[in-house]
Amino acid sequence: MSAALLAALRAAVGRGGLLTDPDATAGYAHDMMPLVPYGRPLAVVLPEATDQVQACVRACAAAGVPIVPRGAGTGLTGAANALEGCVVMVTTRMNRILELDADNRLAVVEPGVVNQDLKTAAAARGLYYPPDPSSLDTCTLGGNLATNAGGLCCGKYGVTGDYVLGLEAVLADGSLLRTGRRTVKGVAGYDLTRLLVGSEGTLGVITRATLALRPLPAAPGTVIAAFDSVTKAGDSVNRVVRAGLVPSLMEIMDATSLRASSAYLGTDLAGHGDRALLLCQSDAGGPAAEAELDRMERLFRQAGAAYTHATQDPAEGALLLRARRVSLTALEARGACMTEDVAVPRTRIAELIDGCARIGDDAGLTVAVVGHAGDGNMHPTVLYDRAGTDEYARARVAFDEILALALALGGTITGEHGVGKLKQDWLERELGPVGLRVHRAVKSALDPAGLFNPGGMLVPHAGAPDTP
Amino acid sequence: MSAALLAALRAAVGRGGLLTDPDATAGYAHDMMPLVPYGRPLAVVLPEATDQVQACVRACAAAGVPIVPRGAGTGLTGAANALEGCVVMVTTRMNRILELDADNRLAVVEPGVVNQDLKTAAAARGLYYPPDPSSLDTCTLGGNLATNAGGLCCGKYGVTGDYVLGLEAVLADGSLLRTGRRTVKGVAGYDLTRLLVGSEGTLGVITRATLALRPLPAAPGTVIAAFDSVTKAGDSVNRVVRAGLVPSLMEIMDATSLRASSAYLGTDLAGHGDRALLLCQSDAGGPAAEAELDRMERLFRQAGAAYTHATQDPAEGALLLRARRVSLTALEARGACMTEDVAVPRTRIAELIDGCARIGDDAGLTVAVVGHAGDGNMHPTVLYDRAGTDEYARARVAFDEILALALALGGTITGEHGVGKLKQDWLERELGPVGLRVHRAVKSALDPAGLFNPGGMLVPHAGAPDTP
Repeated sequence: MSAALLAALRAAVGRGGLLTDPDATAGYAHDMMPLVPYGRPLAVVLPEATDQVQACVRACAAAGVPIVPRGAGTGLTGAANALEGCVVMVTTRMNRILELDADNRLAVVEPGVVNQDLKTAAAARGLYYPPDPSSLDTCTLGGNLATNAGGLCCGKYGVTGDYVLGLEAVLADGSLLRTGRRTVKGVAGYDLTRLLVGSEGTLGVITRATLALRPLPAAPGTVIAAFDSVTKAGDSVNRVVRAGLVPSLMEIMDATSLRASSAYLGTDLAGHGDRALLLCQSDAGGPAAEAELDRMERLFRQAGAAYTHATQDPAEGALLLRARRVSLTALEARGACMTEDVAVPRTRIAELIDGCARIGDDAGLTVAVVGHAGDGNMHPTVLYDRAGTDEYARARVAFDEILALALALGGTITGEHGVGKLKQDWLERELGPVGLRVHRAVKSALDPAGLFNPGGMLVPHAGAPDTP
Repeated sequence: MSAALLAALRAAVGRGGLLTDPDATAGYAHDMMPLVPYGRPLAVVLPEATDQVQACVRACAAAGVPIVPRGAGTGLTGAANALEGCVVMVTTRMNRILELDADNRLAVVEPGVVNQDLKTAAAARGLYYPPDPSSLDTCTLGGNLATNAGGLCCGKYGVTGDYVLGLEAVLADGSLLRTGRRTVKGVAGYDLTRLLVGSEGTLGVITRATLALRPLPAAPGTVIAAFDSVTKAGDSVNRVVRAGLVPSLMEIMDATSLRASSAYLGTDLAGHGDRALLLCQSDAGGPAAEAELDRMERLFRQAGAAYTHATQDPAEGALLLRARRVSLTALEARGACMTEDVAVPRTRIAELIDGCARIGDDAGLTVAVVGHAGDGNMHPTVLYDRAGTDEYARARVAFDEILALALALGGTITGEHGVGKLKQDWLERELGPVGLRVHRAVKSALDPAGLFNPGGMLVPHAGAPDTP
């Protein structure tokens, strides 16, 4: 059976597009989330064109062998982790920017285009593709689409899904679905585009996307503020929102992440205000940016900031932002990390950060928090010692308690990383039984045999048609 | 059978919430699109709470009687038109703004809230709910959600769907589905929120919505430009986009609509530039708005405008905009109207307008075009004489030719009004067979018996489970 499948896959993608050597396939067996187990793939295919994707899908469907689609594998939920004996489909070789239409502010791309490459190509035409996950130098747009990826821009500019006008995707029977449009507006039929975005490879393989672009904003000015309490930092976020400001970036770091970044960079970042740091930018340009930064700085002082500093110099701003950008690396230098991705209403950020500290204390572990204060998406990181006998178990307990806290604060279990093979149980808790039933019905409607990424996002339902 | 159903409905909504007198039900039998036939409803229910909606849905499901959900009935596609013997469910009595959370910039509303009422309540808190269909004084948010309504704000601010964080909807089995979240970001599961938005009452009855708000922008400044050719006006739109400007409003009127509005208002709007008028606004505020308006005015002159005029006075701006706002009323004063709702890429607007003139000439009829130049959504109106023997038939031909032209220009058959019971055949043409098949599969997954609005959006498929 598998010999026939391998022959069909080889016919589809050619000898160079098929990997079966375990040493080679191992490199495609998992993403960046270490907590989720993974199996050994039967094969890895690297199609270069849509018809090759279709041929591979048809071959796997005929053989009853599941497909796990993936891009660069920078995900953080195990969504792209291989199942034992599956075929991993990697779309990184479909990496052409097919069109960049400046007058209609749109790009047509293949899924393997690296996020930064689209940003660069757009910028050369005075245009801007906002979504900026931290892996933007390596992650691909196909993966961004499959996870509805976010980044630091979202408080002002939204997430990947907000930039998708239309898609092409190969369905479980090998047919090619075209959704959406090239126009700014359009309401013809159900929004299947948004149904595919964020579906984590469980409904189809995205082979092409039409993406909206914006005018390139001005280089940003930056203001930072250090606080001697998390509450004051949270209050500052509320004041910014209440003042009607929309900073192009508003990040928060707690005491632990501040200390780690300071040590890593060899600088003292916050002085006396060592409990929390806010880093904000305005890309409004010229006097408008100056006014926005000035207003934020005054609000931060009114909220009791121990220290503030503003600059219109983009280079100095980038330097200040380094503390935030290196935070996970700095934490990893201290030990093993479990990074969370909850989101809460913006007004509850301080409660979440203080709650995470409490959860860490209870577990006898440290929890560091950095996050996107502009949109409430927080990344608490549980630090643990891999060598410690029960540290991993305690870290898992803390991890779950953070998820419960986020839900209790009116939040969600995932702001931008997704569910993957990490949080399916929690997804059920967030969705409730009706929501879960509709999810299963939609999955069955599009992929009745459970060909695509079974066990991803939804736990296979015993006896249900989405069980492979 | 129907006596038992009526008793169940009366038990659900009370005597005051059930209409069966044909004189009373006739007022709920159709929306504002005169071209689509409609039947006589068995009954009209006006529930006041979600549990009443659930009870009505269960009763209708048990009796096998279809439900046509609707709001204020201002739609333009017959989506809310009754089927013979159906139950029309009107959500206008569920009209409370349940929450207005300024610090998280969101509102929680029932479906019967009138669009303008939310705008007013938000503005009192310094917030802005952008979607602004022309019926905003009477249309309800439930209808806006069901049709993914747009308006004049969309080029800068997007459409209804861009403001929906989460929904509650009653499904065909009477269960209550909760989708989405209260947070700015969230990617837990499939985007069922967006699946319901724009589904035109075919998947469920929306009973509650969590809507994102924005800071209230500044009062707008206005610039108008008159042109002696449509091509120059289209070129001006391209220049604005290419310059990286995003006006808060950019409307276009062709010669016929200009003449009609001028006659209706008793003013000469365009002088020598009588072939096309652009009306643009900037709500950037203060010097930024002044700069944006000034830049647009210069671009219009460079494109060969015969006349331009700019004002920072909001009252004068509103006066200038009247020409656009009265355009359909002014055309209706000239005869019967069939109003289209196609959208094309912004660069093809001039081609669409010239094409509509040609289509009118060929049919021996007049076609007037007004539209949202900022997003390419055009509203060509075919004028005809109801008394003329074959004028209606020729108008229908012209109407279809406009749809074909929009598709040929890379556009869509509907930018913001929807498919309804007017354009199902054209939806099939736009979606293609795979897209149509997926639509039917999704409909069957959520509403296997075809309870909700059968014949709306999708033509019932002979023998398929979505046939009632």
